[in-house]
Amino acid sequence: MNVESFNLDHTTVSAPYVRVADTKRLPAGDVLTKYDIRFCQPNVDHLEMPVVHSLEHTFAEHSRNHSDDVVDFSPMGCQTGFYLLLAGEHPYEKVLDLVEVTLRDILDATEVPAANETQCGWAASHTLAGAQDAARTMLAQREGWATVTAA
Amino acid sequence: MNVESFNLDHTTVSAPYVRVADTKRLPAGDVLTKYDIRFCQPNVDHLEMPVVHSLEHTFAEHSRNHSDDVVDFSPMGCQTGFYLLLAGEHPYEKVLDLVEVTLRDILDATEVPAANETQCGWAASHTLAGAQDAARTMLAQREGWATVTAA
Ligand SMILES: N[C@@H](CCSC[C@H]1O[C@@H](O)[C@H](O)[C@@H]1O)C(=O)O
Ligand SMILES: N[C@@H](CCSC[C@H]1O[C@@H](O)[C@H](O)[C@@H]1O)C(=O)O
Repeated sequence: MNVESFNLDHTTVSAPYVRVADTKRLPAGDVLTKYDIRFCQPNVDHLEMPVVHSLEHTFAEHSRNHSDDVVDFSPMGCQTGFYLLLAGEHPYEKVLDLVEVTLRDILDATEVPAANETQCGWAASHTLAGAQDAARTMLAQREGWATVTAA
Repeated sequence: MNVESFNLDHTTVSAPYVRVADTKRLPAGDVLTKYDIRFCQPNVDHLEMPVVHSLEHTFAEHSRNHSDDVVDFSPMGCQTGFYLLLAGEHPYEKVLDLVEVTLRDILDATEVPAANETQCGWAASHTLAGAQDAARTMLAQREGWATVTAA
């Protein structure tokens, strides 16, 4: 299997969690790390798409206020989480801090950035309140993020 | 705005298209290019999520059989397209060829890879036929992919 997540046993994980999914060293020496930020228990729960979409906009925007190394933040098609791609090497705990501070920004946000037909592909499919509920639920389990598999 | 797509005027684009969304040179000298692969006209049409999810699995898997430079292939939260992230520098026409050959693989596929509860976050949310219909529609407009904005 070419895709890293196809080698993850989704039946043994314990969401929410933040996992190093993949690390890639590029030819010139730059390092990329892909983090699996899992909000929902696989095959048990999922986020509705307006929630996913608003988390995508808010997290993609606010995370870049805290780090110049954010290459990408994108939803998973399964609607249980997101991939965060960072350039450079970062201690795992610092990445948890970046996720935490960004989710706190989302709680404080008064609008979803770029949620209009000029800046977005489907402006009607957003919910700030839904994104904030999901962020709040995730933050409430902050101490469990490093525990990826159930005991 | 920190996010590249927030600076794209979605009201003037003409989907389907393949656009260079962003190019990033990393500190050691590696180059990353993010392509906006737009299947649907923004704020007019969108893909249903099982279609998005099956395109994610099939494209992420099959594209890596044609290129070692695929870093990521991820849905947009707006459900109108995907981002393909490639390492290294590639002529634009070669990237169109990569997208084309990968979509042709999807037409030939007999299953969605990893569409089961062990390997996937929501195994029930898949449709091979739906992904193939979307791939077929996209391929039928291959000659228009390089035209990003309406005349
Ligand atoms: N993953 C990227 C962009 C996120 S905002 C995404 C949006 O592009 C827009 O065209 C669509 O509305 C889509 O939802 C990034 O992190 O740069
Ligand atoms: N964008 C990535 C992975 C694609 S497959 C994705 C899946 O991870 C799994 O955990 C979920 O089922 C999700 O839908 C990549 O290109 O590597």
